[in-house]
Amino acid sequence: MAMIQFSRTQTSLFSLLRLLSPFYRHKVSRRSMASDAATRFDFLVIGGGSGGLAGARRAAELGATATVIESHKLGGTCVSKTNPCLFFSQVMWNTAVHAEFLHDHSDYGFDIGNVQFNWETIKAKRDAYVSRLNHIYRNNLDKTYNNKRKAKIETIQGHARFTNDPEPTVEVNGKKYTAPHILIATGGYPSLLSDNDVPGANHGITSDGFFELESLPKRSVIVGAGYIAVEMAGILSTLGSKTSVICRQTGVLRNFDAFISTNCTKELQNSGIELWKNTQVKLVSKKDNGLLEVTLVTKDQEKKNDEEKINTIQEVDCLLWAIGREPNTSGLNLSQVGVDIDERGFIIVDEFQNTTRKGIYAVGDVCGKALLTPVAIAAGRKLAHRLFEGKKDAKVDYSNIPSVVFSHPPIGSVGLTEEEAIKSRGKENVKSYKKSFTPMYHAITTRKTQCIMKMVCVGKEEKVVGLHMQGIGCDEMLQGFAVAIKMGATKADFDNTIAIHPTSSEEFVTMR
Amino acid sequence: MAMIQFSRTQTSLFSLLRLLSPFYRHKVSRRSMASDAATRFDFLVIGGGSGGLAGARRAAELGATATVIESHKLGGTCVSKTNPCLFFSQVMWNTAVHAEFLHDHSDYGFDIGNVQFNWETIKAKRDAYVSRLNHIYRNNLDKTYNNKRKAKIETIQGHARFTNDPEPTVEVNGKKYTAPHILIATGGYPSLLSDNDVPGANHGITSDGFFELESLPKRSVIVGAGYIAVEMAGILSTLGSKTSVICRQTGVLRNFDAFISTNCTKELQNSGIELWKNTQVKLVSKKDNGLLEVTLVTKDQEKKNDEEKINTIQEVDCLLWAIGREPNTSGLNLSQVGVDIDERGFIIVDEFQNTTRKGIYAVGDVCGKALLTPVAIAAGRKLAHRLFEGKKDAKVDYSNIPSVVFSHPPIGSVGLTEEEAIKSRGKENVKSYKKSFTPMYHAITTRKTQCIMKMVCVGKEEKVVGLHMQGIGCDEMLQGFAVAIKMGATKADFDNTIAIHPTSSEEFVTMR
Repeated sequence: MAMIQFSRTQTSLFSLLRLLSPFYRHKVSRRSMASDAATRFDFLVIGGGSGGLAGARRAAELGATATVIESHKLGGTCVSKTNPCLFFSQVMWNTAVHAEFLHDHSDYGFDIGNVQFNWETIKAKRDAYVSRLNHIYRNNLDKTYNNKRKAKIETIQGHARFTNDPEPTVEVNGKKYTAPHILIATGGYPSLLSDNDVPGANHGITSDGFFELESLPKRSVIVGAGYIAVEMAGILSTLGSKTSVICRQTGVLRNFDAFISTNCTKELQNSGIELWKNTQVKLVSKKDNGLLEVTLVTKDQEKKNDEEKINTIQEVDCLLWAIGREPNTSGLNLSQVGVDIDERGFIIVDEFQNTTRKGIYAVGDVCGKALLTPVAIAAGRKLAHRLFEGKKDAKVDYSNIPSVVFSHPPIGSVGLTEEEAIKSRGKENVKSYKKSFTPMYHAITTRKTQCIMKMVCVGKEEKVVGLHMQGIGCDEMLQGFAVAIKMGATKADFDNTIAIHPTSSEEFVTMR
Repeated sequence: MAMIQFSRTQTSLFSLLRLLSPFYRHKVSRRSMASDAATRFDFLVIGGGSGGLAGARRAAELGATATVIESHKLGGTCVSKTNPCLFFSQVMWNTAVHAEFLHDHSDYGFDIGNVQFNWETIKAKRDAYVSRLNHIYRNNLDKTYNNKRKAKIETIQGHARFTNDPEPTVEVNGKKYTAPHILIATGGYPSLLSDNDVPGANHGITSDGFFELESLPKRSVIVGAGYIAVEMAGILSTLGSKTSVICRQTGVLRNFDAFISTNCTKELQNSGIELWKNTQVKLVSKKDNGLLEVTLVTKDQEKKNDEEKINTIQEVDCLLWAIGREPNTSGLNLSQVGVDIDERGFIIVDEFQNTTRKGIYAVGDVCGKALLTPVAIAAGRKLAHRLFEGKKDAKVDYSNIPSVVFSHPPIGSVGLTEEEAIKSRGKENVKSYKKSFTPMYHAITTRKTQCIMKMVCVGKEEKVVGLHMQGIGCDEMLQGFAVAIKMGATKADFDNTIAIHPTSSEEFVTMR
């Protein structure tokens, strides 16, 4: 049983056996069938991040023996200390929101004295909380139940490497492990340029280094235009670091709806961030005082021959590369086992998370698609249901995935951009509704941010295929609309819902 | 045409006539058909609040001549200076949120000096903004278009009173006005006890008076347990007034789901508000120093014979009655014209907003049902579509109306409570999912609030019939879910939606 993929019938047999004997799991499945060389499980997960842990837990709940191999700490990018961790981001974003409130206090009638911000305080609290989170992840594993009995999930500390055994097998610390189903969920890490690409590039840090900063930089340069660049720049600038963002193109978030991209670029600049458009870093030099000089080259696209201008930013104490993420696959020996990767190194999977090698699957950032914790979690769980519950159609629907950018103000987005909708359905079949307004919060403040909203509809029935928003409260606003859109909502379904006054979200049900 | 209800055909004829002559409106509809005594319109609206204005504008957009009679200022409860105005509440709630952030600043690494709050600053800003809002309402009326031409809506300043003419007619400042369709949208006002009910009751104020307070009270007593009591108590207490809430029963918001009612009562107490349960005010006396002494009588329900205890609260400078709202119908002379009212004085309407007199309708708070601005607006607009566009089925669906209470933290609620669902569908057909957690914002604060969520499902398909929540961000969280529920969402529809991490809202799509 262990070496073949479960069909629905086989899974039922598996469940039946389990019901007949409470000791089935240990007696039959795990040890007795192991080969001489390799310890055998039902499900072997490489990578103890969100996707891997979710898959392992759900598999164990469904009766499988699951084991997680992790080289670092349980929790992965989402809770690790050295990654663009969601928790860290969230704490820092909340800290930045506090800084924004400080600006507005006097407008709201509060006179406050001198304000001093202690980066160290917040860093210490963050680190302490993350230590607790690591325990929580461990406890969650221990709290996995199958039919009200605890389902133990083994963890193995170390680096996994596929061997050249005939059946898929990994080696960790000199020991071999095998399973009929092996899940790769090793995640990714931030890209860093080499000194060959940009001399002195290695004087910079990535988002990993951002979370290790011991103090607030005075002068920050963020290279990149994606959501990580936007979030880091927002935090640093709001907390008082003079911040520049270096974009290769004309603005940030170029893969978002143009309405969002344009507005976010404007909000970034309004908040005091210096934006370098059509610009790349050419050279980084470290000066005697330990600070960096960053040399930029800007294409002046309005002039003939794309004339280039050279500028430098002096006395930079934080150069942060936010130029993309790479898959964590080195050392896995993927080619050995026949798992193909794409030109960027991400593992190629089909819609069921199957890699090109039978019995080996991949979920999460290592696949390079929809790099979001909940997507990795959903993919891990769906896979477990497919493999261990016989739900052969279980898979993640990669359309209509909602996501939030913790910019200032936050961005929410689900479904197609207007451009994508026009491309797939034709301009004549697409109708968009837009709204821009100053949220009531800013009615009495001198500092202002806008709330902008766009609904993209297609066809005569005006089916809502995309929803895009930036403004105060958009972080919590999106989830419910995402449920409605996943259900196939039309503009009329939105219109038929009574508005909640006074909120910003009500504007989505009163658009005309 | 003017005196009979439009059928679909008649409305089409009406539209046709209008298209044929741009002067049709003035020539035919308004003046030439008027009787000797009364000026005649297509649509006469008594009350320039949200419901009345929305109905008048929509009617004008559809080609009708509409006139609004208002005794005070355009905008009604929602923007008026002397009412529990949503705008005022919102500004004061945001001010209170600032005060909460002040508590948390040091937890987020900000050391601030002495803080001084100036009630006067915020009051002056509020008043200035509301003056602007009045202009905005006026401008909105002037910006009503019909087929791209401006559709003028007349306004008449004064008190309307139904006459004893054979056809429904009102008199304002000695002049008579009539229309085939007359809408009553006069709203309501806060209840106040008489000195006969509670001696000295008139020393107290209502929510109207709250917005006129010139300074922050030192010692506040709020009588009531509804959402207005909760909101006012939250604002006063958070801004630094020592605040007591007097409840006749065991907690606040007794008509909400018990999960919310219990939690809100607890949050209220945790935030430092003193709660008097099973208590009523017996006597209010004004002392020589101008301050009030409030005498309370508390039933000790644990003791035999409902033993009563007497207590007093001294030196009260703000006694606020938040014990309900009354309809604004005095002086309308409703009985004269055959418009029936219920035992509490609210106008009786059917599901199409028809009163008991043909050709007279009522929307909004004056009907005593779902006292919410967007409901009044929706009802006004639906009525206009029914009367002037021939959409004979146009009406508001009073089920699944979402609403938010701006408590600390805010509450969102749509659909049935669990108790209501059990009552209507039977306990065996109801399944509820619940979650309680500390939001990530509070991960590093000493001050804590909870986020609690409940989903009420019925039947095998687990149709979601109610959603109830209290926590940071719930104000903007609810609207999207309300769209999904209005569409008939099931638990599976929620489960099939990818979560947005890290937010609080994601907990609704990951409930188990």
